[in-house]
Amino acid sequence: MAEFEPSSPDPRSSLRSKNKVRALQDQDLGFASSSVVEDDIEQFAEESGVDEEDIERWIRAIRRKGQAIFYGPPGTGKTYNAERIAEILTGTSDNVTTIQFHPSYSYEEFIEGIRPEYDDADDTLKYPTKKGRFVEFCDEARNSDGNYVLIIDELNRAEVSAVFGELMHLLEYRGKEIPLPQSDREFSVPENIYVLGTMNTADRSIALVDYALRRRFAMIEIGPDYDVLRTFHDDTGHDVDGLIETLKEINEEAIGDEDFYLGITYFLESKLDEYIEDIWVMEIEPYLEEYFFDEDEVVDEYRWDAVKDDVRP
Amino acid sequence: MAEFEPSSPDPRSSLRSKNKVRALQDQDLGFASSSVVEDDIEQFAEESGVDEEDIERWIRAIRRKGQAIFYGPPGTGKTYNAERIAEILTGTSDNVTTIQFHPSYSYEEFIEGIRPEYDDADDTLKYPTKKGRFVEFCDEARNSDGNYVLIIDELNRAEVSAVFGELMHLLEYRGKEIPLPQSDREFSVPENIYVLGTMNTADRSIALVDYALRRRFAMIEIGPDYDVLRTFHDDTGHDVDGLIETLKEINEEAIGDEDFYLGITYFLESKLDEYIEDIWVMEIEPYLEEYFFDEDEVVDEYRWDAVKDDVRP
Amino acid sequence: MAEFEPSSPDPRSSLRSKNKVRALQDQDLGFASSSVVEDDIEQFAEESGVDEEDIERWIRAIRRKGQAIFYGPPGTGKTYNAERIAEILTGTSDNVTTIQFHPSYSYEEFIEGIRPEYDDADDTLKYPTKKGRFVEFCDEARNSDGNYVLIIDELNRAEVSAVFGELMHLLEYRGKEIPLPQSDREFSVPENIYVLGTMNTADRSIALVDYALRRRFAMIEIGPDYDVLRTFHDDTGHDVDGLIETLKEINEEAIGDEDFYLGITYFLESKLDEYIEDIWVMEIEPYLEEYFFDEDEVVDEYRWDAVKDDVRP
Amino acid sequence: MAEFEPSSPDPRSSLRSKNKVRALQDQDLGFASSSVVEDDIEQFAEESGVDEEDIERWIRAIRRKGQAIFYGPPGTGKTYNAERIAEILTGTSDNVTTIQFHPSYSYEEFIEGIRPEYDDADDTLKYPTKKGRFVEFCDEARNSDGNYVLIIDELNRAEVSAVFGELMHLLEYRGKEIPLPQSDREFSVPENIYVLGTMNTADRSIALVDYALRRRFAMIEIGPDYDVLRTFHDDTGHDVDGLIETLKEINEEAIGDEDFYLGITYFLESKLDEYIEDIWVMEIEPYLEEYFFDEDEVVDEYRWDAVKDDVRP
Amino acid sequence: MAEFEPSSPDPRSSLRSKNKVRALQDQDLGFASSSVVEDDIEQFAEESGVDEEDIERWIRAIRRKGQAIFYGPPGTGKTYNAERIAEILTGTSDNVTTIQFHPSYSYEEFIEGIRPEYDDADDTLKYPTKKGRFVEFCDEARNSDGNYVLIIDELNRAEVSAVFGELMHLLEYRGKEIPLPQSDREFSVPENIYVLGTMNTADRSIALVDYALRRRFAMIEIGPDYDVLRTFHDDTGHDVDGLIETLKEINEEAIGDEDFYLGITYFLESKLDEYIEDIWVMEIEPYLEEYFFDEDEVVDEYRWDAVKDDVRP
Amino acid sequence: MAEFEPSSPDPRSSLRSKNKVRALQDQDLGFASSSVVEDDIEQFAEESGVDEEDIERWIRAIRRKGQAIFYGPPGTGKTYNAERIAEILTGTSDNVTTIQFHPSYSYEEFIEGIRPEYDDADDTLKYPTKKGRFVEFCDEARNSDGNYVLIIDELNRAEVSAVFGELMHLLEYRGKEIPLPQSDREFSVPENIYVLGTMNTADRSIALVDYALRRRFAMIEIGPDYDVLRTFHDDTGHDVDGLIETLKEINEEAIGDEDFYLGITYFLESKLDEYIEDIWVMEIEPYLEEYFFDEDEVVDEYRWDAVKDDVRP
Repeated sequence: MAEFEPSSPDPRSSLRSKNKVRALQDQDLGFASSSVVEDDIEQFAEESGVDEEDIERWIRAIRRKGQAIFYGPPGTGKTYNAERIAEILTGTSDNVTTIQFHPSYSYEEFIEGIRPEYDDADDTLKYPTKKGRFVEFCDEARNSDGNYVLIIDELNRAEVSAVFGELMHLLEYRGKEIPLPQSDREFSVPENIYVLGTMNTADRSIALVDYALRRRFAMIEIGPDYDVLRTFHDDTGHDVDGLIETLKEINEEAIGDEDFYLGITYFLESKLDEYIEDIWVMEIEPYLEEYFFDEDEVVDEYRWDAVKDDVRP
Repeated sequence: MAEFEPSSPDPRSSLRSKNKVRALQDQDLGFASSSVVEDDIEQFAEESGVDEEDIERWIRAIRRKGQAIFYGPPGTGKTYNAERIAEILTGTSDNVTTIQFHPSYSYEEFIEGIRPEYDDADDTLKYPTKKGRFVEFCDEARNSDGNYVLIIDELNRAEVSAVFGELMHLLEYRGKEIPLPQSDREFSVPENIYVLGTMNTADRSIALVDYALRRRFAMIEIGPDYDVLRTFHDDTGHDVDGLIETLKEINEEAIGDEDFYLGITYFLESKLDEYIEDIWVMEIEPYLEEYFFDEDEVVDEYRWDAVKDDVRP
Repeated sequence: MAEFEPSSPDPRSSLRSKNKVRALQDQDLGFASSSVVEDDIEQFAEESGVDEEDIERWIRAIRRKGQAIFYGPPGTGKTYNAERIAEILTGTSDNVTTIQFHPSYSYEEFIEGIRPEYDDADDTLKYPTKKGRFVEFCDEARNSDGNYVLIIDELNRAEVSAVFGELMHLLEYRGKEIPLPQSDREFSVPENIYVLGTMNTADRSIALVDYALRRRFAMIEIGPDYDVLRTFHDDTGHDVDGLIETLKEINEEAIGDEDFYLGITYFLESKLDEYIEDIWVMEIEPYLEEYFFDEDEVVDEYRWDAVKDDVRP
Repeated sequence: MAEFEPSSPDPRSSLRSKNKVRALQDQDLGFASSSVVEDDIEQFAEESGVDEEDIERWIRAIRRKGQAIFYGPPGTGKTYNAERIAEILTGTSDNVTTIQFHPSYSYEEFIEGIRPEYDDADDTLKYPTKKGRFVEFCDEARNSDGNYVLIIDELNRAEVSAVFGELMHLLEYRGKEIPLPQSDREFSVPENIYVLGTMNTADRSIALVDYALRRRFAMIEIGPDYDVLRTFHDDTGHDVDGLIETLKEINEEAIGDEDFYLGITYFLESKLDEYIEDIWVMEIEPYLEEYFFDEDEVVDEYRWDAVKDDVRP
Repeated sequence: MAEFEPSSPDPRSSLRSKNKVRALQDQDLGFASSSVVEDDIEQFAEESGVDEEDIERWIRAIRRKGQAIFYGPPGTGKTYNAERIAEILTGTSDNVTTIQFHPSYSYEEFIEGIRPEYDDADDTLKYPTKKGRFVEFCDEARNSDGNYVLIIDELNRAEVSAVFGELMHLLEYRGKEIPLPQSDREFSVPENIYVLGTMNTADRSIALVDYALRRRFAMIEIGPDYDVLRTFHDDTGHDVDGLIETLKEINEEAIGDEDFYLGITYFLESKLDEYIEDIWVMEIEPYLEEYFFDEDEVVDEYRWDAVKDDVRP
Repeated sequence: MAEFEPSSPDPRSSLRSKNKVRALQDQDLGFASSSVVEDDIEQFAEESGVDEEDIERWIRAIRRKGQAIFYGPPGTGKTYNAERIAEILTGTSDNVTTIQFHPSYSYEEFIEGIRPEYDDADDTLKYPTKKGRFVEFCDEARNSDGNYVLIIDELNRAEVSAVFGELMHLLEYRGKEIPLPQSDREFSVPENIYVLGTMNTADRSIALVDYALRRRFAMIEIGPDYDVLRTFHDDTGHDVDGLIETLKEINEEAIGDEDFYLGITYFLESKLDEYIEDIWVMEIEPYLEEYFFDEDEVVDEYRWDAVKDDVRP
């Protein structure tokens, strides 16, 4: 049953009373006063080339909302960024779990359900109502002090609305208990859990996440960050200015639609000079062929022979 | 078998005889004479900024119909309003239960059905015909004096027609008994139960509730209520006039379709000055990008850099 | 095996021999000679405002065909009419059963099938071939003298063709036995059973009943009967002429398609003066918004503020 | 394994060797020499008004092909004709079985399959591989001398291709054995079985029977036969010339498409004068409303008030 | 694990090493040296009217590829031809098995799978992993010297890609072993098995066989072979020149699309003079009505009355 | 839980730390220093006619990415090439396993799941959580030194995204452990496994592999390689210049779309002179008929009679 608070001095508590506990945490663990986190952010920015301000904005948003989705085309480092942020939020990778959604992922496996289990001891099949991975994760976090992060890679590859079930409500109303239909258990999502998803914008055949679900998440757009490419190759000594020019041209002039931009992780390769032709022919060209499947002439403009003088490091 | 009442002095009873009992209750608990409820309404209006007259109209309609759906775009406070109304109707949050519909929700879990259950004691799987959550809720309410409210969040996220089953008929004909197909039990919905659903109008991919089902409910439209935003920030001291102007412009001029209006709960944030840029960039812009997915120029007009001078509190 | 009647004096028996028994009953219980029924019809007409001739025509058709569907838009009293007619046909509500079809309703539950059943006594699951509700209803009627009526509310909400199964044939060929595939039992539908369905014409997403199934039923159109409204408010003392004018205008000029006409049951409310604004704003306007979802200007013409002077009783 | 006949004097046997046995039967039971059958045909023609030559042609075709489909719009007497023909072919209704196809009908129920069966004696569920109805019917016929007829009413209401399974092949190659996948039994269809189906052409939403399946059947078109109407009312004394004129006009001028012609069985009613208005208003008008759902003006031309002077007997 | 052959003198073995064994067989059983087969072909040609060269080409192709599909419109003798070829290839009908694919046919029944089986002895249901029909057929052939032929009638009536499973690979790589997922058994298709399918081109609603699957088969087109008709009626003495002229005109001028040509087997009837009108009215006209469903005037051109003088033998 | 590496000297390790182990292997087993592999490549090129540089590029890419897809129209030697490469990568065919994906292939069979298993010993059905084929393959490879290759033929014939499940993540993050939902086992993909898929581009009805999945693979295009045809017939002595000219013309001028080019393996036939007409008529023409199904005139241009003088060897 819902908590009833007839009145409250904090205006926020009246409309968003369920978020009160974390709201206070946000103040206590305020960004400015946390020098360890500051150091981690700086290091992440330096190593990766991601803008420090971006990282700060992401963390601020994730703390405020409790969950975020990193979205963008393939090859832009969404999963990598989510993992680095998770480590900063928890201070230890011990509290980070990564799972991968896919069309076979079910509500029963994520929340709860009767799942057959074979007992080798007496050769019988048992059907306990087993906690799903998310409920298990919450129970672990509930009895602990630190922060916990669940990374859901390729979140939109499952039928999210069905797999999430009650989470639609509970992610927003942290701490509130509602009954799970199978076990009748009253379940809540603790305050110290963060959920980070990644979502690929180039696969339109996969159901995108709907408006109501989106509203529960901070939506963090990850496009191709050319500075990441530059920073990486500062250490390898390859000149990637020509490559970046060509990628920009392909993305902004030929493709145009940000959801389908070519990513930059294809080229995060120490021996770029040795492999760039392979990468171009067997990764970039097939991508362009699929995208421009009925415009061969556009693909031809960016085949290896046409661009090699520009992109070769 | 149906109750047969050959004639009746009250004209209403002849055509709507099943509603007679509650009709009397409505008169007894008439709005004007109930000063406790009046106080609750006043307090709700004051705290939230929702118009007192609106709240009164909602309660009047819910009493008359027995059930209502709060509908509107995401981020307009539908669930919050439903919860406050539920508390007013029951006088205590003890009698309020919230559930969340989702595509995995079944008739068996809501009404009744054979559901496997594992008995840990003797390691066997049992298959009792279990009451679903709604039947259980009715049985609890039936033996009690007070009012009970079931809140169904995101009602249209399940296949409502299938999950509701016999409720289509019973919600309208309160007190009438019809047989449930699995248990053959004669079941009725007691008069002292109210059902409040929320329905998101922005997710057209989700099946909307059909005409016949709608007729059973009072349909309460919840748009973005700018006064709620203003009332909230009376306490925080932020000037939100510019923000409201911009939201109105986006909603009425750019979006146009009320089912997709931007909500206002994004901005119910005590430290609005600190977070507004984050909110705009990671919540408002992605919403606009999705809505105007093929009209980049509209999105660009409302990006942070374009509106920050207007919306910054 | 089919009954073989090489020749027969009554021409009807040769082509429709299966209906012979009831045909005779029709003569015996002929409408004119049955004064009790006459009284019931008169009373129904008087109380409800439905035209006496209409009621007589409905009963005549139901007797002749054995089954009928009341069809029309929501809020026109289809279910109420079916229930009154059922009581007239049976003379007692004891022989009337109402069920509600919905997408979860199956052939197994309506006709017959193996349905798991948990035996609490010895904690085992049993799978008897259970009679479905309709077969059970027939078996009850078969051993009885009086008439029996099954009301199927929202008949087209289930996949009728699948749920009905053999009934397509047996409803027409009353008394004829055909084998049911699961139990191999020879089953027939007795003459003293009438089936009355209701069908909502406004929900096109729901599969409508096909031509072959329709032919088995008398199709009784129920539109908004303004006289019902008038009769009802003769007792309450409200003047509903203005309301009726406006409803007629909306139906005939704005909506135009009879399948989607606004019904009149919304206004069968004793305290119409007190509630009419609520009804209009929370029931009529949302209906119009959905119907004219891309013609806002039509909805605006009929919003409360625009029509209140005309419709207020 | 297929029967191997390297050469054969009868040219037919080489390409259609599987039909040889019945081909001979056809000669033995040749139409001309069978005076009993002649008498039956004459009687059927006289009673029903169906043309004697048509009946003869149907029987000739059914004997030659082994199976036939009576197709046409609803209300044309397809099922009645199939039943009369069945009785003529068998000489006794004992060898005629009627079943009704519907979407719940399965291969398992028609051909064979494991079907759970509850044994009340020892309260256990058993799963014998049970013969389906058709296999059972064949086994009965195989040990008998006479002809057997299976009538499948509304044949196209099931997914015929799936329910028939191996019959596609075996109906054509009578006597040939092929293995059934579940039981591994070698199964054949005996020569003395005839299969008569009915198919409704007005329900396009129902999958029609495909070309390959059609080729196995004689396709017998049954349109509205006005002589049947006339013959019927010779006995009742009603003048139906005006009615027939109007039906012809509706069919040939308004509807036009033979698959949707109005049938005549609506009017095979002894008290036609008493019921014709009911029939027109509650059976004919709804049919026209559905067919001309967006051409109200056509329906209006044929409403009762417009045609009553012409059609009243 | 794949066989590894680092180099090989026969160039074919390097790219198609899996076919080596049969390639040699082809040489041993070379067409020219096999007088028995020659005799069989001659006899088949003589009896049926099929061109001898066609038969030779078919057999040559089936030997080379291992499998073939006979495709064409209904009524062209595809199944008959497949059966005659099968007998020639095996020399005995003992080694020929015919099965009929249909939508209920599953991978489990064709390849392997757990299939429940009822043991009557002890009244229990058992679930052995049973070989499917094809695996069983292969195991039988593997231990034998002669050739074996599996005829799959109406091959495209099942979901071939799912039912065939691993066969896509194994039919091409004869003798190679790959693991079956259910039993983990290493399975291969022996060299002495031929698979002949028939495919109906007129039923477009049925999924056609895709390019990759087609490549495994020789595709043998069977159109209406008018010589077959002529040869047949050489023996019956009917003059079918006019009939053939009309069929040609319908096919080549009216229908045009070879996939939908009218077949000739309708007229392989010894008493053609007696039955031709029946055949035309109840088999040909319904075919044309379905094909030209919205071009009545074309059908009318070829109704019995219009063509009888031309086609009557 | 994810491995946490706060900082790392190798820039690659920060963004792609999961690939570190294999990256080093790549250096150790560098292409240039591996003379055995060089010899194998040379031999493969010589025997098959595939360009040596192409083979080198493929191997380089597969080593770098860990997995590749060979894609192209049917009949271009995709599977053959994958098998040869697999043998070169492993040095022994013992470590190569080929499986064939098809629509019946499930996540349970590929990754893990409860799969019923019949125990013949005690006649009971057991349900162990069985490793799927891929997990089994990984476990075998994990305890071994050499390289292992899994060839997935017709990869896109299964619903890859569902069957692969967690592999989407693990193929990229080699060595990283994530929990499998059914067994809760922490699973990783070892470095010494390579996955080679083939994908048919001509079957558009089959779901193609989406962008995110593609990014995990090197995409190797295999078109019709005319040199392969030439090399093959250097040994057979047939002149295939004319044939190649015609194939080129059909592919480049008539078909145009590379995804549908005619392959060359149809003509890898030692007795090409003897069989070419058969191949053309029963393999090439049906392919063209299907592709140009509504352009008969194009097919006619390339029928046997039209091209025989050009293509006959």
